[in-house]
This record gives sequence, structure tokens and C-alpha cells, in this order.
Amino acid sequence: MHDFTATYTDLYQINMAQVYFQQGKHEHKAVFDYFFRKLPFEGGYAVFAGLETLLEVLEDFKFSDDDLEFLKDQGLDSEFLNYLKGFRFEGNIISATEGDIVFPTRPVLQVEANMVEAQLIETILLNILNFQTLVATKASRIRKSAGEQMLIDFGMRRAQSTGAYHASRAAFIGGFEATSNVVAGKDFNIPISGTMAHSFVQSYDDELTAFRDFANSHPENTILLIDTYDTLKIGLPNAITVGKEMKSRGEELKGVRLDSGDLSYLAKKCRKAFDEAGLEHVKIAASNQLDEYVIRSLKEQKGPIDVFGVGTNLVIGDPDAALDGVYKLAFANDKPRIKLSENLAKLTLPHKKQVYRLRNSEGKLTGADAVTLRDETDIKHMNHPFDVSKSLSFKNCNEEALLHYVMKDGIRTEPPKRLEDIKVYSRKRLAEFSEEFQRFENPHLYKIGISDQLLKEREALRNHYKNKDA
Amino acid sequence: MHDFTATYTDLYQINMAQVYFQQGKHEHKAVFDYFFRKLPFEGGYAVFAGLETLLEVLEDFKFSDDDLEFLKDQGLDSEFLNYLKGFRFEGNIISATEGDIVFPTRPVLQVEANMVEAQLIETILLNILNFQTLVATKASRIRKSAGEQMLIDFGMRRAQSTGAYHASRAAFIGGFEATSNVVAGKDFNIPISGTMAHSFVQSYDDELTAFRDFANSHPENTILLIDTYDTLKIGLPNAITVGKEMKSRGEELKGVRLDSGDLSYLAKKCRKAFDEAGLEHVKIAASNQLDEYVIRSLKEQKGPIDVFGVGTNLVIGDPDAALDGVYKLAFANDKPRIKLSENLAKLTLPHKKQVYRLRNSEGKLTGADAVTLRDETDIKHMNHPFDVSKSLSFKNCNEEALLHYVMKDGIRTEPPKRLEDIKVYSRKRLAEFSEEFQRFENPHLYKIGISDQLLKEREALRNHYKNKDA
Repeated sequence: MHDFTATYTDLYQINMAQVYFQQGKHEHKAVFDYFFRKLPFEGGYAVFAGLETLLEVLEDFKFSDDDLEFLKDQGLDSEFLNYLKGFRFEGNIISATEGDIVFPTRPVLQVEANMVEAQLIETILLNILNFQTLVATKASRIRKSAGEQMLIDFGMRRAQSTGAYHASRAAFIGGFEATSNVVAGKDFNIPISGTMAHSFVQSYDDELTAFRDFANSHPENTILLIDTYDTLKIGLPNAITVGKEMKSRGEELKGVRLDSGDLSYLAKKCRKAFDEAGLEHVKIAASNQLDEYVIRSLKEQKGPIDVFGVGTNLVIGDPDAALDGVYKLAFANDKPRIKLSENLAKLTLPHKKQVYRLRNSEGKLTGADAVTLRDETDIKHMNHPFDVSKSLSFKNCNEEALLHYVMKDGIRTEPPKRLEDIKVYSRKRLAEFSEEFQRFENPHLYKIGISDQLLKEREALRNHYKNKDA
Repeated sequence: MHDFTATYTDLYQINMAQVYFQQGKHEHKAVFDYFFRKLPFEGGYAVFAGLETLLEVLEDFKFSDDDLEFLKDQGLDSEFLNYLKGFRFEGNIISATEGDIVFPTRPVLQVEANMVEAQLIETILLNILNFQTLVATKASRIRKSAGEQMLIDFGMRRAQSTGAYHASRAAFIGGFEATSNVVAGKDFNIPISGTMAHSFVQSYDDELTAFRDFANSHPENTILLIDTYDTLKIGLPNAITVGKEMKSRGEELKGVRLDSGDLSYLAKKCRKAFDEAGLEHVKIAASNQLDEYVIRSLKEQKGPIDVFGVGTNLVIGDPDAALDGVYKLAFANDKPRIKLSENLAKLTLPHKKQVYRLRNSEGKLTGADAVTLRDETDIKHMNHPFDVSKSLSFKNCNEEALLHYVMKDGIRTEPPKRLEDIKVYSRKRLAEFSEEFQRFENPHLYKIGISDQLLKEREALRNHYKNKDA
């Protein structure tokens, strides 16, 4: 299930593409940068996600006859529509590795293609990468709080329509173990997990019978929801009864779930009662408006919770709910390009570029990524991108190039990656960053610099337009 | 394009359904309520949206062979899976009319179906109705600020993955005139609109040529983006040049778009310059992080802006990004059902119910909806749902029943509605509510009461479970 078509776009992309086509610009090569300006959640980093989804969409990018008929009715030019009939994306994608830790200002991905190709994929690219990066980053923060505890994505019902699908994918990359989302589990090979709802218990005349029926039907996977009527007075005793019955049959009650009330307090009461009943194996799961802060608090209180089910706040990327990623032209028809702004921080970086992660001679992070012209090497000095008074010199650095060709002429350079591998890579990359970058409150600022040559190119372009209006 | 399958659900629905099936509960009739507890955006009302999407999904609700194969691998029972093979939704939907103004606590929609049917559609129902109601409500607030000005949805690139699709639908219901979203325009017959991006201007060596090429390609629909280099010094003079050229050819420059800087100030400067150049017909469109508050401010400053393009804040329903709608069992196997909670406001309302909008003898709103048992009539007294000390008597009220059968035995009771008709209905319904309910700051509280009989039934059930644990 992926539901992106070539008409999954803003109309202006098609309107602009028509002009490019008519002006022969579909022969012009362009380079666009994908980057964002602000880290989500006031955090210290972001987890890049969505690349595989994007590549899959680009491989399959075409206009159906139905699409073209619709566009014709919208008054678009018939010669142009004829060109779109056979249109495929045949450009290059140079990208950070999915799952890598990324930062504002620096390109996360570049598109090299003709102007029409590059323009027509803008909306879909932004839509995919912005959202999955947002949710993977949120998931990573929740993982940070949860430590070794199990995390399950429960967010589908409050997700933004079919956004739930990619939310579950991104949550897994960011560090979740499982999802309640069946179709995401099926398509992405994410372990799926499910307990029971209050309605299940309510549909019976008494809770105990409800619990027994569930245990009989799912002996391998019984997690009882114990707060429908009263957690400690009704639910817990019933769960102990069923736990003992299962034990006597040689089965194991897997767990109980708490979905309301004081989760830490209730978990302690439950743990004690289960242990006293000889049911030490019963796990305690908790849900109800959890996020990285609530989970941190529950851990601080030493609530003996084994599994956290996180819903709304995860899948909508609360409280930001959107990453401000943009797609800006950096190079076209053999010339570097810039977008000016009264707001210096909205100035774009022209040219084909590369991004290096600077490491010391032992390979450890130095705390900075440098943005350079594509083919520059031996960077010894970098500049603050927006504050010319600030710069940084360094020596004996190992430069790790962060952007790689993942698609050439519309064809992937390597086979699709397994989601599990992306997740493992992401954890490994994040582990390189010290606690200071990962903390929630005023995290340490990871530096992004631009090389002397890139600065020079940018200033030359700025002056060009400044002089123009004089 | 709609991408909901029967596996677009939480696993626990399927797990519970298996138990119901094994216990013969697929023969039991159940009634579930869909309602929410908190109005979004600290506002005074919500706009109900998503019903047509839901009905379309329910008509087509089935498990594919592929789905069943996957569920088999997950360890589900083969007899149950065999039952799912031929599964269709054959229940009833009793709902508020799409576009109506709705409030917390009272049922917005009820599902009457067998336990398996009702449980299996829970996730998809919540997912659809929660999100579209959120965005339609947001759109309605933005419409309130914008007054007669045109509103266009520009949010696709920051939407939550394919959530953009239904966001555009809901935005139209809430009061937007058009969208940039091509596929939503195509599928929902929403007018689509598009201007140009900065990249278009950047791809040229000079802005004037870019503008001219666009005007030649789209003479009927040229809206020039004038802030790529410098709005007043470069963009505006170039737009005037092109506007005059078009005029001399007997064409009309449709408008310009401002996407950065002080929108009110720039709009005034542009308006004056266009008027002085004899280009009074050129409209001014503005975009850039707009929402109902920014638009209100722009209107207060009398910025002569004709069109507002609203993106991120609309399509993600910022700042809430989720409506807290829930789906609770009210009746099963011939008995009313309740979910208790330490938090009184989380107590559910048992039984098959109806909701009445109370009007005075002239048909005007009295400011209250009453929730009653399904077949009660002649309500003269209602009670606060959670505060027993509060009640309200009334007489000579006209009771407008708000919930109607829209699906019986899995078949719609009437043909699909046109989106335009839903929107017109919604505007008409909202217009009945006075300014006090529509204001953004501390809006007037619309009252929800429950009838004496419903209160009695609820209290009887509460006591039943209270006595149980004694």
C-alpha cells in the first residue's frame, strides 16, 4: 500500500513544468537541495527517514491517462501533456543514508535532474521526508526515555488519516519495536502487537469471563486490560485468577495493560500482587497519552513498567506536527542559483555541494558538519553560515562524506534496504553523539559550517543581485 | 485514491474479533458511540467531517487473500480467518449530518452492528473522523478570520504523508475555496489553484524573463511570486512591467503572491503601485505561516490582500494536530454497557441514544443539545452529564433530532453527497450560532445535557459495578 501518484502534487509544479517544457528547459540540468531550518521538539538532532519510500515512489512515478485527462480539463497545454504521457523520473538522488543523524541548514538530500523532473517531484519528496523525519526523531527521543523497555506504536486511531502508515514505519526506524498497525506490519515487516480494548470487557456481563475467553483464544499472547471498571479492586484480582489458571494449564499470562490512572502507583501495586501470587513472569504494559517526558517521569518513579504503548504524541510528532523542510534550487543550466531573503537565515546555499562529518584522528566526532562545494577536499576552515564574524579552523580531521548517490538516471544504485537494517544503522549513528546532544533541555548545539569557497560563491551571487537593484 | 483496507486497523481489533467469533458473539448486536471529549483549538464548536469517506470505506470493507495469509502467519485461528474471507460490513450507521456543528460528550455517530463488525471498523472510523473533523474545524476558524477573502489550501508539502489527501477534503468543507492539491482536486472536485515557486524565478538568469515566460504560457492564470530577490525593488517593478505588457495584449495579469516579509506593509505598497499603473485588476495573494490569528491581524491592519494561501497550520490542524475522538460500547447483547473511570468525565453514556438540538418556538437555537435514550420524546428537563448538582428545565422547545440512519445493513440510505453541498450545509449550520460561540478567546460554552432517563440508566449501571467490588 502506497498511494502516491504523479498527481500527488501541488498544481504549481505542473504549471511551472509546462513553462519549462515550452522553453526547452526540460533539457537543462538542475540541482535542488532538500534541507530543514529548525530542529523539531527543541531537540539537538533529527533522524533522517523516508528515503526508501521516496525511491520507491520515484521508480514508479508516472501520470495515468486519467490524470492527463484531468489536467487537460484544467487547461494545460496538449503538447506538454503529451510529453507527460511518457514521463518518468530519470534523474539522480544524492542523499544522506536513511537513519543518519542530520542537522539544519546542511543539505540532507540533493536532486540532480532536468528542471521538469526536479520540479514535478518536489511536493511528494517534501511530503515524504518531512513527515517521516519528524516521527523518526520523535520516536528516537521516546526511545531515549524508555531505555531498555519495550516500545509499541499505538497511534493509528489518532493519526492524520493514512499518515498512520508511514508514521509506523518512521517510528520503527526511530527505535520502536512493534506497532499495532496491521497494514504497516504487513508491508514493512514490523512486528505487530495487540492487546484488548475496554469494549471487549464491556461486551461481557463480567470481566473475569472476558479475560478467560481471551486467554483461551490467545494462550500465547494474552495481555489483559484491567482498568475497565476498577484496576486494583476488580481488574487485578481477575487477572491474577486467570494468570493462575493459565499457569495450571502450563500456559503463561503474558501481561496486563494499564490505560488510566496513576500508572506508576498502579504498576507497583500490580507488580507486588503478581509476584506474591507466583506470577513473576506477567509483564506490565502502560499506555495513555505517553510521550518522552511522561515516560522519563515514570522511570524516575521506578514504576515497574515493562512495555510502553505510545499513541497520539508519537504518530503526529507532537507538539510540532510538521518539519519545516524545504526544497531549494542551487544550480541550473550550468550556473549556481540563490534565493535571497531579508531574513539572513533564509538565504540559500548555491551550487552542487557535499557535506562532511568531521572526525578527529581517532574517528570520534568533533561536533561539526561542513558544507562544501561538491568536489572540494582538504577543508581546514569553515564559516558560520549566517554570522560572518564566526569561523572555525581545524586540522588533522577525518572527513566523512555524508551524501551518496542512491539513484542514478532514475535507477537505484543499490537494492532496497531492510527496515531493520536502517534502524540498526540509525541507533549506531546516534550512539556516536554524546548525551549533551541528546538531552531534551537546551541540548548542545551541533555546528554546521560552510567552506571558504562556498561562502565566496554565495557572496558573489548576493552581490550580483544587490547591484542589480541599485 | 483511497487507501484504506480492512488491515488498516490495530491488531487488537482482530484479536478481539477472533474471541467474539469463537464465542458466538458475531451473532450479538452491539451499539458503539463515536464522540470526542474536548473541542479542538480551545474553540467553541467543531465541524463534523469525514462521514462520506467512512461510508465509502465501509461499502468496500474486505480482507484480501493477501491480508488473510498475513494474519494466518500471525497465528490467528483458521476457522476465524475463513469467516473473515467472506466478511463484509452489514451494520447500520446512525450519524450526525456531515458538516454539522458538533460538541463534546454527545454521540456524533453510532454504529449498530454485530460485535465483530463493530469492532473491526473501530480504528478506521476513528482515524477518518478524528482527522477530518479536526481540519474542517480549523478551516472554519480560518474562514471566520478571512471573511469574504479567498482561501486556498497550500499545505500538501508539510502534511502528514498521505494525510494531505483528506486534509484538502476537510479544508473545503470547513470553508476553503480551492486547493493546490491536484489529486484531491481530481477526486473530490475541489477547484485547484497554483502560482509559481521561487525555484521558477531562480532557474532564470533574470526575474523579468521568468515572469514573461510564465505569462505567455498561462495567460489566463498568471500569479507572479515577487519576493525571490527583493519584493519592492525587483519583484514589484517586474510584475508591473508584465502586467502592462499583458494589458496591451488584451490579457489580464491575475495577481502577485507575497511569501515573506511584512505582508500587510508589502500588500499596501503593491496595491498602490498597481493602482497607479492602471492595473487595478491585479489581485494580491499572501502566504507564509498563516493561520486564523495571523489573518485576523492582517485584516485589522487593512492589508489589501485578496487571497490567503494557508499551508502547514491548516493541514496538520495546528496546534492540536489530533482530535481526541473515541469509540465506546454503549449496548451489547440486549444490555446497556458502561465504562467506568476514576475520572468522572471519562464515564461513558450507556444505551442506544438520540441527540436533540433544542430550539425555541421560533426555531432559534437555545444553546443546548440534549442526549436521550433513543426513543424518548418530550424532554423537559436535562442534567449536566458529570455534575449532578446542575440541571436545566425548559418548555416549548422544538427538538431537532441530530442522528439519522445513513447506512442500513451495510447499504447507504441515500446516494453519496457532493462535497460542495456538504460545505454549503456546514456554513448554514454554523451561521445559526452567535458570534459568542465562534470567537477564538474563551468562547461561550454550548451546553450538553443528558435526559433524566439516561441519567437513571447510567447511575444504575454505575451502582451495579460499585456493589460488585464491595
